[in-house]
Amino acid sequence: MSGISESLRTYQQRVDATLERVLPAANVMPVRLHDAMRYSVLEGGKRVRPLLVYATGEALGVAPEVLDIPAVSVEMIHAYSLVHDDLPAMDDDDLRRGKPSCHRQFDEATAILVGDALQAQAFQLLASATELDVPAVQRLRMVQQLGRAAGSRGMVGGQAIDLDAVGHSLTEIELENMHIHKTGALIRCSVLLAAYCSTRLDESQLAKLDHYAKCIGLAFQVQDDILDVEGDTDTLGKMNGADAAAGKPTYPSIIGIAAAKKKLHTLHDEAVRALDGMNADLLLEIAEFTVKRLH
Amino acid sequence: MSGISESLRTYQQRVDATLERVLPAANVMPVRLHDAMRYSVLEGGKRVRPLLVYATGEALGVAPEVLDIPAVSVEMIHAYSLVHDDLPAMDDDDLRRGKPSCHRQFDEATAILVGDALQAQAFQLLASATELDVPAVQRLRMVQQLGRAAGSRGMVGGQAIDLDAVGHSLTEIELENMHIHKTGALIRCSVLLAAYCSTRLDESQLAKLDHYAKCIGLAFQVQDDILDVEGDTDTLGKMNGADAAAGKPTYPSIIGIAAAKKKLHTLHDEAVRALDGMNADLLLEIAEFTVKRLH
Repeated sequence: MSGISESLRTYQQRVDATLERVLPAANVMPVRLHDAMRYSVLEGGKRVRPLLVYATGEALGVAPEVLDIPAVSVEMIHAYSLVHDDLPAMDDDDLRRGKPSCHRQFDEATAILVGDALQAQAFQLLASATELDVPAVQRLRMVQQLGRAAGSRGMVGGQAIDLDAVGHSLTEIELENMHIHKTGALIRCSVLLAAYCSTRLDESQLAKLDHYAKCIGLAFQVQDDILDVEGDTDTLGKMNGADAAAGKPTYPSIIGIAAAKKKLHTLHDEAVRALDGMNADLLLEIAEFTVKRLH
Repeated sequence: MSGISESLRTYQQRVDATLERVLPAANVMPVRLHDAMRYSVLEGGKRVRPLLVYATGEALGVAPEVLDIPAVSVEMIHAYSLVHDDLPAMDDDDLRRGKPSCHRQFDEATAILVGDALQAQAFQLLASATELDVPAVQRLRMVQQLGRAAGSRGMVGGQAIDLDAVGHSLTEIELENMHIHKTGALIRCSVLLAAYCSTRLDESQLAKLDHYAKCIGLAFQVQDDILDVEGDTDTLGKMNGADAAAGKPTYPSIIGIAAAKKKLHTLHDEAVRALDGMNADLLLEIAEFTVKRLH
C-alpha cells in the first residue's frame, strides 16, 4: 500500500505480527489445515479493516495493545470470506493478491475448512485473549457486533444478494444494498469494535463514527468497481475487467464511469464531514486513501 | 428418536421451538439464504447436543430457560458442519436425514453461505440473547469454549484429519484422535456450556461431566460405525455401508465388529461411572440411548 503514512505502515506491521502470533503454528496438527490458514491470512492484503480499528482507537485515545485482538478478529473474518468467495461454486477465482487462491494452492475441501476455522478463531479470540483488557460486558458487545456483521444479515447476506444478482440487471439502490451488506457491514464493525474498547464514548460520537464507516465502506466498493474498469492487471493482482466479464453488476455498468467517480468523491466528502470536531487524522488519511488507491 | 423418555422428548420440542424462533424468518431478505438455513436446521435431527445441554443443566439445577440459547448455539454449529461436510468437495452426500442435502436442495454456493451464516449466528446468540441470564464473564467463557470446540483444534480440525485419512490405513489411536476432534469436541462443549450456566459448580463436578462427555462422544461414533455395517438404510436415512464404501476408516474396519461392540459397552460403562454420586437421570438415559440407538 504505497503512499501511506508512517503511522499506518506501522499499524500494518503490527497487524501482521499479531496475526503471525495468534494463528496456529504450521507444525501444529492438523498441519495442512494450519498451513493453509496461515497462507490465506498472512500472504499480504491491505489490512484496511484492522487499520480502521487502530485509526478509530487513536481518535478515541484507546491504547494499541487493546486494539490488536479486535483488529485481527475482523481481518480473520475478512480473510475467511475471501477464501470462500474464491471457491469454484462461488466466484471461481484462481488468483488472490497475485498468488494462487487457497483452493488452488491446497484443495477445495481444505479451503472450505480454512474459512470455517478462521471464523471460529475470530470469535474465540474476542472472547478469550487476555490482552483485550476491557470489561466483559463490552467484550460481549463486540462478539455480538462481529456476529451480526458477519452473518446472514451482514456480510454473508450480502454475498447471497451478490450471487442472486449475477446476470441480472440491478438498480443503483439494489447494488448499494448489496454492498452495504457484503463489505459495508464488516467495515462498520471495524470502527465499532474499536469504539467499544473505549470507556468514555458518547452516543453522538458513536453515530458520527458509524456514519463515517458507512461512507467509507461504500466508497471503497465504488473505487473497486472503477479500478475493475480502469485499473492495471499487474497492480490489481487480479484480471482487469474480471467483474464486468463475469456479468457482475458494478457502479460503472449501472450509472456510468463519470457518475461513479462523482459518487466516490461525494462519499469521501461526507465521510470527512462526519469526523468534524474529532481529532481523527488517521481516519481522514484512510478516507483519502480509499479514493486514491490504485489497487 | 424412538424409545426416549417424555422428558427428553419435551426438550427436543423445546429445541425445535427455540430454533424456529431464533432463525431468521424465510421471508426476510435474502430469502433464499434464510430459507436454506431453516431447511438445514429445522428438518429433523436427533438434537443430541442440545439434549446434553438440558440434561447437564437438569443435573446441576439450571433452569431450562437459561439453557435454550446454549442448546441452539451448539446445534447450529453442528448443523452448519453437516451442510459443509455434505458438499461435493467434502463427503459429496446427496442425502441428509433422508432428504436432499442442502446443496442438492438449493445449490453449492448457497450451502457454503448457509454454513457460514449459521456459525456466525451461533456466536452472536451466545453473546447477545437476553434470555441467557448469566453473568457476562460466564457468557464470554461460553463463547470461548464454543470457538475452541468448533475451530481448527476442535471440530474443523477433526474434519481435516478425516479428509487426510480417506484411503489411508489408520491405527485405532489415530482413528480415536480424529473422532475426539471431529465429533467429541462439540459434544464435550455441549456439557460444558450447560455447566458454565451454573453458579455453584465445583471443579471436580466439571471434571466428571467432562469425562462423561468424552466417553459419550466416542461411544456415539463407535455406534455410528457399527450402524454403518449393521444398520438398515431406511432407518439410517443414508446408505448402509456408505462409509466403508468411501474408504473411510471405521472401528469395525480397524479392530473388527466384535471388538467395536465391546469398546462401545466399555465406553458406556465408563460414562455411567463418571456420574457416580450425581443426580443425573437424563445424562444416564442419553448414555443408554447412545448404545441402543438404531440410527
